[in-house]
Order: sequence, then C-alpha cells, then structure tokens
Amino acid sequence: MSKARLEAFSDGVIAILITIMVLELHAPEHATWAALVPLWPVFLSYVLSFVFLGIYWNNHHHLLQAIKHVDGRVLWANMHLLFWLSLIPFVTAWMGQNRFDAQPVALYGVVLSLSGAAYFILTRALLASPVIYLAAIPLSFVASWMACALYVLVAIMWLVPDRRIEKTLFS
Amino acid sequence: MSKARLEAFSDGVIAILITIMVLELHAPEHATWAALVPLWPVFLSYVLSFVFLGIYWNNHHHLLQAIKHVDGRVLWANMHLLFWLSLIPFVTAWMGQNRFDAQPVALYGVVLSLSGAAYFILTRALLASPVIYLAAIPLSFVASWMACALYVLVAIMWLVPDRRIEKTLFS
Amino acid sequence: MSKARLEAFSDGVIAILITIMVLELHAPEHATWAALVPLWPVFLSYVLSFVFLGIYWNNHHHLLQAIKHVDGRVLWANMHLLFWLSLIPFVTAWMGQNRFDAQPVALYGVVLSLSGAAYFILTRALLASPVIYLAAIPLSFVASWMACALYVLVAIMWLVPDRRIEKTLFS
Amino acid sequence: MSKARLEAFSDGVIAILITIMVLELHAPEHATWAALVPLWPVFLSYVLSFVFLGIYWNNHHHLLQAIKHVDGRVLWANMHLLFWLSLIPFVTAWMGQNRFDAQPVALYGVVLSLSGAAYFILTRALLASPVIYLAAIPLSFVASWMACALYVLVAIMWLVPDRRIEKTLFS
Repeated sequence: MSKARLEAFSDGVIAILITIMVLELHAPEHATWAALVPLWPVFLSYVLSFVFLGIYWNNHHHLLQAIKHVDGRVLWANMHLLFWLSLIPFVTAWMGQNRFDAQPVALYGVVLSLSGAAYFILTRALLASPVIYLAAIPLSFVASWMACALYVLVAIMWLVPDRRIEKTLFS
Repeated sequence: MSKARLEAFSDGVIAILITIMVLELHAPEHATWAALVPLWPVFLSYVLSFVFLGIYWNNHHHLLQAIKHVDGRVLWANMHLLFWLSLIPFVTAWMGQNRFDAQPVALYGVVLSLSGAAYFILTRALLASPVIYLAAIPLSFVASWMACALYVLVAIMWLVPDRRIEKTLFS
Repeated sequence: MSKARLEAFSDGVIAILITIMVLELHAPEHATWAALVPLWPVFLSYVLSFVFLGIYWNNHHHLLQAIKHVDGRVLWANMHLLFWLSLIPFVTAWMGQNRFDAQPVALYGVVLSLSGAAYFILTRALLASPVIYLAAIPLSFVASWMACALYVLVAIMWLVPDRRIEKTLFS
Repeated sequence: MSKARLEAFSDGVIAILITIMVLELHAPEHATWAALVPLWPVFLSYVLSFVFLGIYWNNHHHLLQAIKHVDGRVLWANMHLLFWLSLIPFVTAWMGQNRFDAQPVALYGVVLSLSGAAYFILTRALLASPVIYLAAIPLSFVASWMACALYVLVAIMWLVPDRRIEKTLFS
C-alpha cells in the first residue's frame, strides 16, 4: 500500500478541518470595531485549535517519514485519529460561543485526549500529552483558565521540534 | 492518463465529504451536558457515515493499486461513484435530525445501495453488500433498528481487509 | 514551474466546488417522502452541475497532459478558469431554488459561457461549446427548458472522450 | 522533511479558502435580475480576495521552488502565513456585507498586512507590499475607495511575474 496516498488523504482532511473552523467566525452585521468585540472568544478558540491541528499535521508528517510499511492496521489507526480530529471544529465552536465555560472546555479536553490517545495508538509511544489533557478535564470545573493553560502548555511542548522522541522510537 | 491524478481527485472529494458532515453537528447554545444530549442521533449517524466513507476510501485505494490503465470509462465510473458518495452527507443529516426514522433510514440505504452499485460497476465483482443494502430498505419500514444493524454488519464485513476478493479479481 | 502543483491545486479547487454544492441540499425537517419532493429542482441542478464540473476536470486533466511547460501565463489562465467555475455553486443554488426560472437559467448560461471562454483562453481551440451556451442565454427567456436542453447537449458532446480535438491541437 | 507534503498541505488550505469564500454569495430568494443587484459588493470583495489568494498561491509556488531544505522553522513560518490567509474569508465577508465601509476595509488591510508580514518572515525579502497595506489602513478612514485602490495596485504589482526578486533572493 502506498504511503503517498495515506499522506495525501490525511493532508486533505486536516487542511479542510483547519479551514472550516473559520466559518464559525461569522461576519458581524455592523461595520464598527465594537461589533468585533464579542467575537474574541470565538477567535481565541480558533487560534488555539489552529495551532493544535498544525501540531498534529507537523507530527503526523514526521511520523510517516519514519514509517516504511503501510498496512490495514496503520490505515485504520490513521482513520481513527482523523475521526477525533474531525470533532475539533465542533468543540472549538461550542467553547468559543460559550466564552470558555466549564463544560465546553472539559469536552474540548476530552476530544484532545482521545486525539492524543489515537495518535498514541498510531505511534505506541507518545505518552505525556494525553495524561496532561486528562488532568485538564476535572480541572476545568475548578477553574477553566487553568485547564486552558494546560492545553497551551502541551502546545508549547510540541512546538519544539521533538527530535528526541523521533530518535528514540525509530532508530 | 495518469492514475495519480484520479487518486488525488478522489482523495480530495472523499476527504471533503468526510469532513463537511461534521458541520451538521451544530454547537448547542447552552454550555451544559444536557444541551449535548439531543445531538446523539446526529453524532451516531456521523460516526456510521465516517466509517462507511473510510471503508470506501480504503477499498478504492486497494482497487486502484490493482488497476494499471485508466481510460475514460474508468474515469466516468469513478465520477459516478463519487456522485453517490457525495449524497451521503445529505442522507446522514436527514437520518440524524429525524432520529433514525423509517423513511430517512430507507433513503440512507438507497444511497448506500447506489454507491455499492457504482463501486460494483467500477470493479465488476463486489456483489454481496449491495444485496444486503437492498434487503435493508423494506426492513426499515418494519423495524428501522434492524436495517441499521444490517448497515453495521456490512461495515464490519468490510473492515476486515478483504484480500480474498482482491486476489480473485486481479490475479 | 512544476505542472504537478498546478494540477494538485486545480484538483483541490474542483473537488471542493463539486462537494460544497451538496450543502445546498438541506435535509428536510420532516421524515416523510413528501418532504423530499420540493428538493427535486435543487437536486436536478446539482446533478447537472456535478456533470459539468466532472467534464471540466476530465478535460483539464487531458489538456495538462498535453502541456509541457507551465509559465505565468498558463497559471493565470488557469486561475481565470477556476474563478468562473467557482461561481457554479452560486448559480446552481439560485437556479435550483427558483425551479429553473428564466433569469437564473440565463445566469447559469452566462457562467458556463465564461467558463467555456476561460477554457478556450487556456486551450485556444475549443470553440463550439461557448457558442452554444451563448445561444442558450436569450433562449432561456423564450423557453427555459430549451436552454436547459442545450446545456445537456453540450454535456453529452463532451462526455464522449474527444480524442479528435486533442489530436488536432497538440500533435 | 519532504517539500512535497508542505506544498500539498498549503495547496489544500489555499484551495479551500478560495472556494469557501463563494459560500458568502447566498443565492437570492427571487428569480429576478433586481435580486442580484445587492450582491455586487459581496461579489466585488470576493473577486478581490480571489485575486489576492491566487497571487499568494502563485508566489508561494515560486518561493518553494527556490527552497531546498524544509525544516521546522520553515514549516511554522508557513503555518503562520496560512493562519493569516485563513482570516481572508472572514474579512472579505465583513467588507462585502457592509459595502466597503471604513472599519471593514481597514481590517481587510490589517489582515493583508499581517499576511504580507508572514510572507516576509517566510522569505525575509518582500518589503514593499506590507508598507503599502499599512498606508492603506489610516487612508480607509479618509476615503475607503483610496484604500481599495492601493489594494488593487499591490495586486497589479504582483500579477507581473517578479523574476527580479526571485533572482536577487535565491541566486
């Protein structure tokens, strides 16, 4: 089975997910700066999810470079990952429209956890981030900004190109 | 005619179909778990269709690996398949929004039958699943859950990588 | 300049256009066959436009196989073609929602004419079909079904793989 | 890291952005020419943004041909560019729906400035156009047509294939 087509399909799905989220940014009716203000939570949640999907695409890219053989198991593990990623626009919209309220922030964490778990199934090695996401779920009921801070932390962790993991896993 | 571009176009269409379905999952107005509950039928029909489109993409991938020469006939048979697949988001939305009522479940079966028939035209060999889909259409008026069970059955049948068919057809 | 990326971008745009049209097929509120009936004009206009975009993709594919050198002129001629094709979902929706009324059918003809002209600029040889489209515009005010018949005629003309034109132009 | 996948992903995102903008062109309810008239500002802003995204895609294409090595820095600079480009549908809709009113035209300029800056970060050389965009922002409060004229000017500047810059930068 060709790796190129798996990459192309995943690229297509992630590119679409990252761009349809912007459809949630509805153009306000009035042409004033004031009309833009209520959009900030939607915009912020968009930025956060854009970065997360960018990180997944980036790491997916690295991961597939390390893989040589694509079989049915890899293909379905990849589909499983894409499924959870496909729910990100939904939870992003819910979180943004409700100004980072506890339940939506918790559900955002659930979807990121399951995406992380799906990525773990794909790689069998990336342990750290799902654990942090799981910690964020109960935290979001205590103080939702702390849960958000944890999401940002994981994003920063992954923004650093993680050569170490790649070396450990595939050498 | 190059096989690569036919694959790229089909990948694009299927990737878009699989992701625009998630637009039907409208973020609820309120930030409570209770607000999520009415979304379950929409979510379930999304999962079912995600799996079906994943199966089609997977098999399409296998099929095109077995094909060497792409002529106008193959191209239009492929377009025909993509046409019926493109109706899946519509019937998925109708089925989900009406909580698996008889007529929408039947129409879902019709579209899957015609997709299966289109795939059959493309391969001239995959007989079993369209017959099961056809059986599901009248059944959905008796008990719609039985029709749904048949759809799941076909999904499971196809989740197992079907090397047998591939061997029979292309060796 | 690489031909592959021009093909990939065009494939992406056409794949998206062909699939976002299906978003106009709104799932009816009620779960009855009767609720589907008012969708027929929208569905028919979708089918027509799906076939047209399929034809454009098919011919675009053939055309680029015949082209060796992609320069800035080809790139912008291609963008120009994609621009007119990008209006097809809009005119399709207008035509379908107004049940093939005169003005929408005429505008559909205008967009197809300009797409045909853009394709002509790209190939400098495909004369016949834009002329027919132009004839269809005034006709749509006499009898809109006749204009529709002309669109179908052109579709049929192009469904036959036109090896003759390709031979004449590029040998 | 393979350049091909970075190109494919960027192509996907830009192709989607360029086509989802057309969703803002809502089909009018009535089948008369008069019903189309109020769409002109939305249509014009669509044309302008289509040309801009076309220009970005074109230049991105040229730029990546000049690049040999894709590292994490390039990847994130590219993501950063795609982020600002992804806001173009939003500002296009706002500008079109408010008939080129001052604030939306200014925000359009802000997003184009930041896209230009992001492209500059990617290339470290394209200085002229962000400066012009910045000049357009205050101007849009004096006379919004003058700001629009500047956007068109930049578009024209870039429509000419700029071999000079490419030579200077990469030789």
